[in-house]
Amino acid sequence: MSILQTFILFSILLSASHAAVQDFCVADLSAPEGPAGYSCKKVSAVTVNDFVFSGLGVAGNTSNLIKAAVTTAFANQFPGLNGLGISLARLDLAPGGVIPLHTHPGGSEVLFVIQGSISAGFISSSANTVYLKTLNKGDSMIFPQGLLHFQLNAGKGPALAIVSFSSPSPGLQILDFALFANNFPSELVEATTFLDDAQVKKLKGVLGGTG
Amino acid sequence: MSILQTFILFSILLSASHAAVQDFCVADLSAPEGPAGYSCKKVSAVTVNDFVFSGLGVAGNTSNLIKAAVTTAFANQFPGLNGLGISLARLDLAPGGVIPLHTHPGGSEVLFVIQGSISAGFISSSANTVYLKTLNKGDSMIFPQGLLHFQLNAGKGPALAIVSFSSPSPGLQILDFALFANNFPSELVEATTFLDDAQVKKLKGVLGGTG
Amino acid sequence: MSILQTFILFSILLSASHAAVQDFCVADLSAPEGPAGYSCKKVSAVTVNDFVFSGLGVAGNTSNLIKAAVTTAFANQFPGLNGLGISLARLDLAPGGVIPLHTHPGGSEVLFVIQGSISAGFISSSANTVYLKTLNKGDSMIFPQGLLHFQLNAGKGPALAIVSFSSPSPGLQILDFALFANNFPSELVEATTFLDDAQVKKLKGVLGGTG
Amino acid sequence: MSILQTFILFSILLSASHAAVQDFCVADLSAPEGPAGYSCKKVSAVTVNDFVFSGLGVAGNTSNLIKAAVTTAFANQFPGLNGLGISLARLDLAPGGVIPLHTHPGGSEVLFVIQGSISAGFISSSANTVYLKTLNKGDSMIFPQGLLHFQLNAGKGPALAIVSFSSPSPGLQILDFALFANNFPSELVEATTFLDDAQVKKLKGVLGGTG
Amino acid sequence: MSILQTFILFSILLSASHAAVQDFCVADLSAPEGPAGYSCKKVSAVTVNDFVFSGLGVAGNTSNLIKAAVTTAFANQFPGLNGLGISLARLDLAPGGVIPLHTHPGGSEVLFVIQGSISAGFISSSANTVYLKTLNKGDSMIFPQGLLHFQLNAGKGPALAIVSFSSPSPGLQILDFALFANNFPSELVEATTFLDDAQVKKLKGVLGGTG
Amino acid sequence: MSILQTFILFSILLSASHAAVQDFCVADLSAPEGPAGYSCKKVSAVTVNDFVFSGLGVAGNTSNLIKAAVTTAFANQFPGLNGLGISLARLDLAPGGVIPLHTHPGGSEVLFVIQGSISAGFISSSANTVYLKTLNKGDSMIFPQGLLHFQLNAGKGPALAIVSFSSPSPGLQILDFALFANNFPSELVEATTFLDDAQVKKLKGVLGGTG
Repeated sequence: MSILQTFILFSILLSASHAAVQDFCVADLSAPEGPAGYSCKKVSAVTVNDFVFSGLGVAGNTSNLIKAAVTTAFANQFPGLNGLGISLARLDLAPGGVIPLHTHPGGSEVLFVIQGSISAGFISSSANTVYLKTLNKGDSMIFPQGLLHFQLNAGKGPALAIVSFSSPSPGLQILDFALFANNFPSELVEATTFLDDAQVKKLKGVLGGTG
Repeated sequence: MSILQTFILFSILLSASHAAVQDFCVADLSAPEGPAGYSCKKVSAVTVNDFVFSGLGVAGNTSNLIKAAVTTAFANQFPGLNGLGISLARLDLAPGGVIPLHTHPGGSEVLFVIQGSISAGFISSSANTVYLKTLNKGDSMIFPQGLLHFQLNAGKGPALAIVSFSSPSPGLQILDFALFANNFPSELVEATTFLDDAQVKKLKGVLGGTG
Repeated sequence: MSILQTFILFSILLSASHAAVQDFCVADLSAPEGPAGYSCKKVSAVTVNDFVFSGLGVAGNTSNLIKAAVTTAFANQFPGLNGLGISLARLDLAPGGVIPLHTHPGGSEVLFVIQGSISAGFISSSANTVYLKTLNKGDSMIFPQGLLHFQLNAGKGPALAIVSFSSPSPGLQILDFALFANNFPSELVEATTFLDDAQVKKLKGVLGGTG
Repeated sequence: MSILQTFILFSILLSASHAAVQDFCVADLSAPEGPAGYSCKKVSAVTVNDFVFSGLGVAGNTSNLIKAAVTTAFANQFPGLNGLGISLARLDLAPGGVIPLHTHPGGSEVLFVIQGSISAGFISSSANTVYLKTLNKGDSMIFPQGLLHFQLNAGKGPALAIVSFSSPSPGLQILDFALFANNFPSELVEATTFLDDAQVKKLKGVLGGTG
Repeated sequence: MSILQTFILFSILLSASHAAVQDFCVADLSAPEGPAGYSCKKVSAVTVNDFVFSGLGVAGNTSNLIKAAVTTAFANQFPGLNGLGISLARLDLAPGGVIPLHTHPGGSEVLFVIQGSISAGFISSSANTVYLKTLNKGDSMIFPQGLLHFQLNAGKGPALAIVSFSSPSPGLQILDFALFANNFPSELVEATTFLDDAQVKKLKGVLGGTG
Repeated sequence: MSILQTFILFSILLSASHAAVQDFCVADLSAPEGPAGYSCKKVSAVTVNDFVFSGLGVAGNTSNLIKAAVTTAFANQFPGLNGLGISLARLDLAPGGVIPLHTHPGGSEVLFVIQGSISAGFISSSANTVYLKTLNKGDSMIFPQGLLHFQLNAGKGPALAIVSFSSPSPGLQILDFALFANNFPSELVEATTFLDDAQVKKLKGVLGGTG
């Protein structure tokens, strides 16, 4: 049997299954989305670049009120993550920088400190226990799904961390934005948080909220 | 720094993630459906009314053979439930009313009695054990996924219950409808249930079955 | 063939599978718990009462600051729910009552109004959109997993609602408790929320927080 | 570098991960069971025999009322299946044999005919549609999770099929056993099925039911 | 009440839920695919033939290098499996035949020997333990998800097995194809496998690889 | 009302749910493990240190054959990850270093380059397509679940990457270890890989395999 014949015969073996086995499902952001994620790009159109993302290599702009920046690599920015149960983000914290209290409704987070020193914490729902720790370069910390947590720069120089999520679309709900950066009526904010009217209006002013 | 500048800078923080994070997936009933549910309506078209349903506020019509009615709020009636792992229904039972033996192939059920008294039961698969209870106003009862169960009015007045399911599309297979309200050939019904021919034909007559 | 013989022969059919098929997994609260829930009580010890709960039939005590009460029927109170992907709670709202802003980190919620009128809302993470609605008796409303939401009595009399969750242990993180009812250091609360020191200390005073 | 040195150095690589990575979770039937399945046997005690089962190689005894037998290989009989999302069973159908109407509450089924000819069918919940087909050797047929279905010998000789399930513990609820082989009170069976009293009592007599 | 009236009234009961409850989701191979599988064919277009497949009734062609054939019934060949968590395949092994080392990235496998004798094995990741067994007619063996495994004919005549997977699209990565039947550069193959250059080039020659 | 009274009354609200809501499930490595992960440590014994891990801050020892090291932070090393669907690892690659071809049977991976330059690739199952890319500092790359992949140092200095997985116990099957570092009989290795006898024996010698 010649090598050519061998190849032909051998390749018959899997002809049936070559068509559409689902190793991955690179997001086609222009097609319908469902509860499990975006529709898949056709495999024939997929290239290695769908699995590579350079956006986390650039420091976020920390010249802002919080002296910090979150750069996300969720499925809508990094389509190769669609359906794979994981995503990333980059945290840049200038000296004095803080990522304010927030939750990820759709996934748990693990943070790894690349540079500097970060104080971080989360609050449990079962007993409102506060879990606080100051992390140094090389330390990792877990923030379970849906729990309020924060990170702030605990050192004198800039801090950098890479964070991973257990979902390609974990979401991000920043407490101050949810309360003060929209048209949530002040009287409802006050009634449901017990914050004073002056406090609510002050922060709505800072964050551009109305109502 | 002016307030305006502050707002501009602060809002940069999350620009990347604002686009399409998946908090919810309101069903677009006209778009393709997949194993995980319906396609999502565009977020820009979603309003609070997608998350509100008034259909369970109206009593079902119990002027029928079973003196009872099931009004469902599954994802195809209440599109906001799509992808969220939950749905509701309302049971109305006139005096003497009964929800005949049935299963929900796709979800477990919890019933809460709002009015009246209801006798309910389910049968386990492992040992054909019958779990029976008469429930009063304020009582809850669980019916695990896929197991045959029933509810009947145990009191003298009307009874009302709200039921929840662990799926937005739990399905509903009523035993009598499955056996007698279609074209399932009588000889096959008899061979696979050991019911007598006369019994099968009688119920096919009542329920409109053929064959 | 006698009937007795028939029964003996027929019952052979399933002898192998009778032992431990898992229709349900009633929680044994004294045994180890894992990521998927509590260990199962032995089937031989399970009775119908494991599937029935009367605790939601009693109005919660609303003689408190918020004039409201949440009575939960999660798996640790209603063990039959363990592993079934669903749970319940009852909301009692006296006139002027409010369930303050909170999240359920582990599940989505659907509320059904049994009595009175309730104003409710949630805030999306993707765009901080506020979804608000006043609900009347018979109306249902969805609160997607992990998003901040609230309910308050919008009428003059008492209001009552039954709520369902897409998890047997959805959790409950009340914003004010997370911020002010524990030992979360005031300076960290302030740094991560931008609330004023006086505001933080005032609410820590009301809610018993320290630090 | 000597080969021995090489081996020592190379094997350092994975020392951390050798301990407890979870390739499989062979059931320890004597340890606690949870919603996701049985506890795992220690890996050091696992042998290839935990992954091999000979019980489906023996024909079931069809000398019974239904002239058929179901031999299951669920996780409680074949512990290596625990946690792996799959199980098997063997159907033996003597001439005239029938597997009566039944459901698997916990999994979908695919049947493959090894010998003979089998008529099979299932009924959908959405519209009570009956899907019927006569299958020959080499044919496969799907029975979706939780839906009533049956198989009967459509030929003159014995028939044999192997069936697979999408769960290690799919359950098996046979309609006649659920209705007539336990202490389900006749009046409740009648009220919830509309079967005649004589029919119910006749089948309770055959199947050993009481009440 | 006439029978007709009865039927009309009784059938009102379920009118709301008849529309789109999701018992199954037969793949529409021409519509968008998502992470959970293919889009569903409209229920009105579904027939029993979507649930029946005859392709596993035909022996695969074993006149090839490996003297073996794998015939798959995955969701792309057998669309009724879409979303149901299960699929099948048929293994034909002529005398001396072998299914080379491979993995299924997306599902666990259970094999059932219908004819002949098969030696099979898999290698665990945790300790590189080899689990080997020679199986006879009627024996079953498990191959956990993602682990390298093989099957070879251990007898003198042909061998036949039916295998089931815990996914409708488990995938199939054959080691030799992954290494030698594509344009994977030889120097990279060598660097990442420690195989000799001559060995790599020899097998690339046999299998049609380049680079 | 005094502040103390207020606190007492307010705290009644959640008394029922404080006991055991499952925000997290820190692994108790000494208790039974199930298919969904390890048993949970009691919440009262959990501290912030269960959520913090320093083991990834230390460079792995690359003085070995592959000039590389993998340091894992899976649930058995970092117990707080149990049940949360995520884990981490650290890759150290000295100049010339390589992580040989391997798979993670239980999870997808995303790599982020912290230092240096890394060439990486994976092979799809559907068409044996090779996806190759050279990554620089700040680049991310996806390796879908269960597919063969590798990383090698593409620069002149050391390279460092942090990788995340979509499972707390993704597993790690290194091809060379699976084939050559155990007692997998040489004749079976050869029959199922088509490698030459000399090649197999050479690598068994290097890696300490027998048989």
